Amino acid sequence: MVDFEEHREELLECIRDLLTRKQYAALRDQLTQLEAADIAALLGDLDEDQLPLLFRLLPKEPAAEVFVELDPDEQELLIQGFSNTELKEVLDELYVDDAADLVEEMPANVVKRILRHADPETRKSINEILKYPEDSAGSLMTTELLDLKRTMTVQDAFKRIRRTASDMEIISVCYVTDEGRHLLGVVTIRDLLLAEEDDIIGDIMDPNVIFVNTLEDKEEVAQAFSKYDFFVLPVVDAEGRLVGIVTFDDAIDVMEEEATEDIEKMAAMLPSDKPYLKTGVWETWKARIPWLLLLMVSATFTGQIIAGFESALAAVAILTAYIPMLMDTGGNCGGQASVTVIRGISLDEIEFADLPKVVWKEIRVGVICGATLSAANFLKIMFIDRLVFHNPITITIAAVICITMLLTVICAKIIGCILPLLAKKLGFDPAVMSSPFITTLVDAVSLLIYFNFARALLGI
Amino acid sequence: MVDFEEHREELLECIRDLLTRKQYAALRDQLTQLEAADIAALLGDLDEDQLPLLFRLLPKEPAAEVFVELDPDEQELLIQGFSNTELKEVLDELYVDDAADLVEEMPANVVKRILRHADPETRKSINEILKYPEDSAGSLMTTELLDLKRTMTVQDAFKRIRRTASDMEIISVCYVTDEGRHLLGVVTIRDLLLAEEDDIIGDIMDPNVIFVNTLEDKEEVAQAFSKYDFFVLPVVDAEGRLVGIVTFDDAIDVMEEEATEDIEKMAAMLPSDKPYLKTGVWETWKARIPWLLLLMVSATFTGQIIAGFESALAAVAILTAYIPMLMDTGGNCGGQASVTVIRGISLDEIEFADLPKVVWKEIRVGVICGATLSAANFLKIMFIDRLVFHNPITITIAAVICITMLLTVICAKIIGCILPLLAKKLGFDPAVMSSPFITTLVDAVSLLIYFNFARALLGI
Repeated sequence: MVDFEEHREELLECIRDLLTRKQYAALRDQLTQLEAADIAALLGDLDEDQLPLLFRLLPKEPAAEVFVELDPDEQELLIQGFSNTELKEVLDELYVDDAADLVEEMPANVVKRILRHADPETRKSINEILKYPEDSAGSLMTTELLDLKRTMTVQDAFKRIRRTASDMEIISVCYVTDEGRHLLGVVTIRDLLLAEEDDIIGDIMDPNVIFVNTLEDKEEVAQAFSKYDFFVLPVVDAEGRLVGIVTFDDAIDVMEEEATEDIEKMAAMLPSDKPYLKTGVWETWKARIPWLLLLMVSATFTGQIIAGFESALAAVAILTAYIPMLMDTGGNCGGQASVTVIRGISLDEIEFADLPKVVWKEIRVGVICGATLSAANFLKIMFIDRLVFHNPITITIAAVICITMLLTVICAKIIGCILPLLAKKLGFDPAVMSSPFITTLVDAVSLLIYFNFARALLGI
Repeated sequence: MVDFEEHREELLECIRDLLTRKQYAALRDQLTQLEAADIAALLGDLDEDQLPLLFRLLPKEPAAEVFVELDPDEQELLIQGFSNTELKEVLDELYVDDAADLVEEMPANVVKRILRHADPETRKSINEILKYPEDSAGSLMTTELLDLKRTMTVQDAFKRIRRTASDMEIISVCYVTDEGRHLLGVVTIRDLLLAEEDDIIGDIMDPNVIFVNTLEDKEEVAQAFSKYDFFVLPVVDAEGRLVGIVTFDDAIDVMEEEATEDIEKMAAMLPSDKPYLKTGVWETWKARIPWLLLLMVSATFTGQIIAGFESALAAVAILTAYIPMLMDTGGNCGGQASVTVIRGISLDEIEFADLPKVVWKEIRVGVICGATLSAANFLKIMFIDRLVFHNPITITIAAVICITMLLTVICAKIIGCILPLLAKKLGFDPAVMSSPFITTLVDAVSLLIYFNFARALLGI
């Protein structure tokens, strides 16, 4: 391949000369020998009014490639001068992501014209790209990437890298594509440096490429980064065509966002995407109030359980004093289990199929935690509450409290680990099934256990 | 994404089948198509006694990558079975930071064997890394890095890169050092590719290098990655000498670990560094029981408050039914504030100096959240509890409950935002000051407000 930059002035001279002499066939031959990016660079150097003429000399396919490489203002100039048929031809040749970029770059009136003349298929694809859901790989990717052809030599590859290096976010990983832009393999700058100059890219590339699809959830994309230790991942569309790359810095942002979201949901808040100090008071209120209201209303049941056992409480008034401790401990135990499971789900360590294993583990942990807490509680009641605070406590009352504690802890652990997994299975966000929600549920359970044991053992 | 998880069962089936039929060549082909992390996952699913056989089928380089991804007990199993030559081969292929991690994980006798068979250079590097504290940049770094001299030409640099590329984790960023190994500048492979062959490194390097110190906390290091979007950072010792580099994949691991630790602490657990399903029941118990015990004992105060107001509760028994709702709502509000602030501190968005701003914001959020909740609660009490459940409620009792709600919410928000910032200021971990702790505190506050208003307004 001729080194373009060396000959740039010479080529410009030649093109101007051929233009003046109206040698259009020779001009066309001259141009088509060059790479699209080089043609675009030359067109950018020439007078604006020569641009449409020269562009029209190009065969259809290279024309589209050149069009993509042009600056937005040159593209706009060309589109303004295109007949409808010409516009349609160029659009048909464009890759949809390039077309989508074009649509994003152009002013509204040009966009309207583009969308009117793109064939329905293309128009649909453009709209699709622009509408990549906010949380998809498509919305995260950059389309500036180094793609090589299988037939290139290592020397060609280096030339291409040198030419485009300054525009690329990542140059140390190159993807190999075919004419239809289908992803064929990956080559790193290390592979290129260790290869011989005349080695063929197709021979040295690694054909096993881990890629993500445009619509993949960005959380999954971030997980792939963490799992495979890549610092760039290719994004392919539904047809297996390389449309972009996602880089590690975007993945890191996603990971932090996702962790923050999980934490917010675990604390019964709607996730926000702004830093705390930049969020307005009303916005914060809006994120916090829905769960507070829901959980407050749910506490009605707990209240009604207490109301229902009013006579029992009236008979042995000291029972009331242990309600907060039982409820809080139950809530804490359930919260521990649920938060552990939620985080495990987030990090892909636990899935629904693990449910029996998880429940069995939580039962065992629940039994020993419950036993420890009950024992400690029994000692506290008998030696501190009774002897120091002179609470009117009998051994039977202490037994009621401690048995309730043991059973509540076990129930809390089971509820805490099942609900997030169940939520995941049903397609809800497991993070919502955390402490506040579990607490409300466990409250009711612990009170029912408490009062029923009190009735049975104390005969009230 | 080529979704590995989707094909996992299928792949396992296929591997088991090939193993039974002793089709080792096919098995090797099958495995080498996969990513190291996926191969490791598959090996973990198979019988332990098949592990060494399968591992030996892998070519040297992927074998080392897979080895790094295996669980410590699988690594130990393999090492126990390795001949000295095999061990040496694997060690030679490992990056030194991975080798150092291995040494940290293995039992003493295995460590001895590893160090005996590592070549002297590697052994020195491992020992270098191991002398740094567990949570420091030094423990995270690898000592294998590309250093160039200021006087080299670009051509020299490329020669050096080509010569060492196969041993390096990162080759796209090179650091420039003087004879004393002091860090002078940075040159990227992009700079080198865009430079002329006889350009001098000293002229094209960027002398402004962001670096971290060996003793820097790894959390700070991870923050630097997220802030600067670098994918590698140089590590220098106290004398400014370049001793290693930290790569983005280690930073990503640290971020995930830190987020998990924060979440665990927020749920009143001691942080663990093992995945949930690999943690034993007693280990889980040990991580969970200390806070449960402490919080349970703290609930004594809440209990004593209730015991102290026994006569008031006896006079208007229905008051008891609203204790859980008031306590839970207070806990939830406090938890929301504390968790938001804790996360803000973790992400460096909030610091102690912001305390007045944070408190002022939480007061306002508390007032409108409290007002909303009180209003909703008033309606619920008057129309559901009174008319549907026939609770014996007067307007005054409803007022007591709703005023308590408002004040509790405001107090909870203030307590929730102050404690984490205070903890940070005093050098404790702010994450500990989250929901469970705040809940216990807010419980007492809400009960005191409740009973005092009840006494004053109801004259009991």
